[in-house]
Amino acid sequence: MTPFRVGLLGHGTVGSAFAELLAERAADVEAATGRRPEITGVLTRTRGDAAEVIDGSDLVVELIGGLEPAREYILRAIRTGKHVVTANKAVLSQHGEEIYAAAREAGVQLRFEAAVGGVVPVIRVIHETLAAAHIDRVHGIVNGTTNYILSEMARTGASYEEALSEAQELGYAEADPSDDVSGRDAAAKMAILARLAFGARVGLDDVSYEGVENLTREDIAYAKELDLSLKLVGTAERTGGGLSVRVHPTFLFGAHPLAAIGGSFNAVTIESPAITEVTLSGPGAGGSQTASAVLGDVVSAIIPPAALPLPPVDEPIVSDVESAFYLHLEVADRPGVLAQVAEILGLQGVSVKSVVQHGLGDDARLEMVVHRVLESRFLAAVDLIGRLEFLRSPPRVIRVIEETF
Amino acid sequence: MTPFRVGLLGHGTVGSAFAELLAERAADVEAATGRRPEITGVLTRTRGDAAEVIDGSDLVVELIGGLEPAREYILRAIRTGKHVVTANKAVLSQHGEEIYAAAREAGVQLRFEAAVGGVVPVIRVIHETLAAAHIDRVHGIVNGTTNYILSEMARTGASYEEALSEAQELGYAEADPSDDVSGRDAAAKMAILARLAFGARVGLDDVSYEGVENLTREDIAYAKELDLSLKLVGTAERTGGGLSVRVHPTFLFGAHPLAAIGGSFNAVTIESPAITEVTLSGPGAGGSQTASAVLGDVVSAIIPPAALPLPPVDEPIVSDVESAFYLHLEVADRPGVLAQVAEILGLQGVSVKSVVQHGLGDDARLEMVVHRVLESRFLAAVDLIGRLEFLRSPPRVIRVIEETF
Repeated sequence: MTPFRVGLLGHGTVGSAFAELLAERAADVEAATGRRPEITGVLTRTRGDAAEVIDGSDLVVELIGGLEPAREYILRAIRTGKHVVTANKAVLSQHGEEIYAAAREAGVQLRFEAAVGGVVPVIRVIHETLAAAHIDRVHGIVNGTTNYILSEMARTGASYEEALSEAQELGYAEADPSDDVSGRDAAAKMAILARLAFGARVGLDDVSYEGVENLTREDIAYAKELDLSLKLVGTAERTGGGLSVRVHPTFLFGAHPLAAIGGSFNAVTIESPAITEVTLSGPGAGGSQTASAVLGDVVSAIIPPAALPLPPVDEPIVSDVESAFYLHLEVADRPGVLAQVAEILGLQGVSVKSVVQHGLGDDARLEMVVHRVLESRFLAAVDLIGRLEFLRSPPRVIRVIEETF
Repeated sequence: MTPFRVGLLGHGTVGSAFAELLAERAADVEAATGRRPEITGVLTRTRGDAAEVIDGSDLVVELIGGLEPAREYILRAIRTGKHVVTANKAVLSQHGEEIYAAAREAGVQLRFEAAVGGVVPVIRVIHETLAAAHIDRVHGIVNGTTNYILSEMARTGASYEEALSEAQELGYAEADPSDDVSGRDAAAKMAILARLAFGARVGLDDVSYEGVENLTREDIAYAKELDLSLKLVGTAERTGGGLSVRVHPTFLFGAHPLAAIGGSFNAVTIESPAITEVTLSGPGAGGSQTASAVLGDVVSAIIPPAALPLPPVDEPIVSDVESAFYLHLEVADRPGVLAQVAEILGLQGVSVKSVVQHGLGDDARLEMVVHRVLESRFLAAVDLIGRLEFLRSPPRVIRVIEETF
């Protein structure tokens, strides 16, 4: 079968990551969809002709960003019958209706999962939840830069300025961070989510927003006494009289699902009477994450998600796997106990990550966490430890998942 | 257009909630899909004929549970060309390949979002992520009963037996809880997720599992010293030699996205190099939540999720909305300050939820959280408070989202 021709507009961080990922995953995509995607044209800042790239493709990926010429290219692609995948929140939040209407008229697909929420598939979930549930409210932490800044201020007691420069050094914030820190980026994303969640005409102009520039370390420190954590939260909700869409610095109580979202992560909570609430979270947009969301959209455009698993392949099921472990020992409190335990662990290749020892006398106990190790080796060590005479009760073993970040 | 005929097998808690929700949402579903769903046959324990219900429908919803006769009915429906939606994790984890193969052969849809994760759309997300990302690992808290028990043990220091009876009183655990507390329910769900995530033949028999029956309050208490929280975690992962799928009591470090999942909530983390990780969370299966997931599948079966927003409706944008607020005041520490502030708030109808007052002298400050109130009323009160002579600096106002649970 002929390849599925993908025209790529924009070849910056995300564009080049996308081109790389597409090449890497092309065979798998072909296996799943029957069509092999291939990049057949690229427009960069200095090379390529937009019209040629568009005309020579089945689907156009727009990663230029901003309003023009992105809007013009998207409309041209749609009107010449091409599917479009874009990560452009600016153009969708300001010219969305024009673009959606053109796509409906042309009968092409327009997918934009990467425009909101990084790898978090919030567009799909809102879209597919829509007909079955009446969405009342969406709360979102949709800007990774400001979430990183606020998390650092809370964690280290840094001032806003200090946290911002750190974010800039680490590449989480741009040299000119105003779009992020003013709340405007989050406002554009909330406009797109509100449009989908409520099916109503909502654009960037309808969103009131306030940024994080004026927040102080004291705001964060004092509110901890009330168990409040500070986030830049976008809210889209139905009220008695209509819709409200806004972005504000907002305190969350500890139990709120968004309260635990730290670093540059994004998260969105969707509330509806029938489902109560669903929360989606994951890394905010980095180049490779956004590229992955774009590729997901390309695959969905080639073939709508199947409602059925493919025939299975056979893979062996492994029973002895690596895991980190917690080990609790009740011991007689006398010299050399920890040394003997450590020696047995060491002989089995088990490496201790952290240990707490409590005295005294008959109440002595050891709690430790060990790094990932083959289960069989760890259990062999525990078996040996269980025979030590100073043990007052059988060892207790519980698996541990180590932090991935 | 003729209605879309839905045959309902099973009319217990979920079945009756589904029938009610369908009636309530039928008009919206028709608006979104062009077909009005209608229940045209019901099989209960005492009434109805399965063959008649199946033959008279376009889609069969199977909510009987268990292996037989659920398997027989599902296969009959598929082989007579009906789409099937089911919440039955037992039959899918033990006869999945037979059922999936029959559906592929018959060219009908088989959807089963409600079988795993309550309202959390984990099946869709794994399914749609699949072609674009190579999934390495899935971690899941997929049993609400045991998560409730462990959360209560951690929160109150209760023993396993105490927490279990409380869960039974509140309806979170059944009279015979063995399927939940043994880990078997979670194992069935992990088998289904592993089958989808890896595209490999994985059934319940391939999953090793261990329950929560032997956990003690000391296990939980001691591990808190190491910043570990205890969950029943299902893991499906690619290892060097093949696949591993298992369910165990597992400790999580505070920063792990599953560590904060409390009560009867479910959550799943999907890990892949390109996306890093995505976490989905929400209430575990209750009758109305499961019914909502079933209806979502029915809607998707009528019409695959659109790749485009529908034309917009016009709804007014409201600017003055209700919110809870945090108010910080730097005040001169003298008698009557709090009373004056409280009086102004009261006159504007603002009700105080909590307040912290710090003395003394020039460093005195008040921090308070007020309940939801119209923004305009609260800001009017703050304006008046800002004119009080004992104020040493302008009031600081930050919005607050109150806990929803």
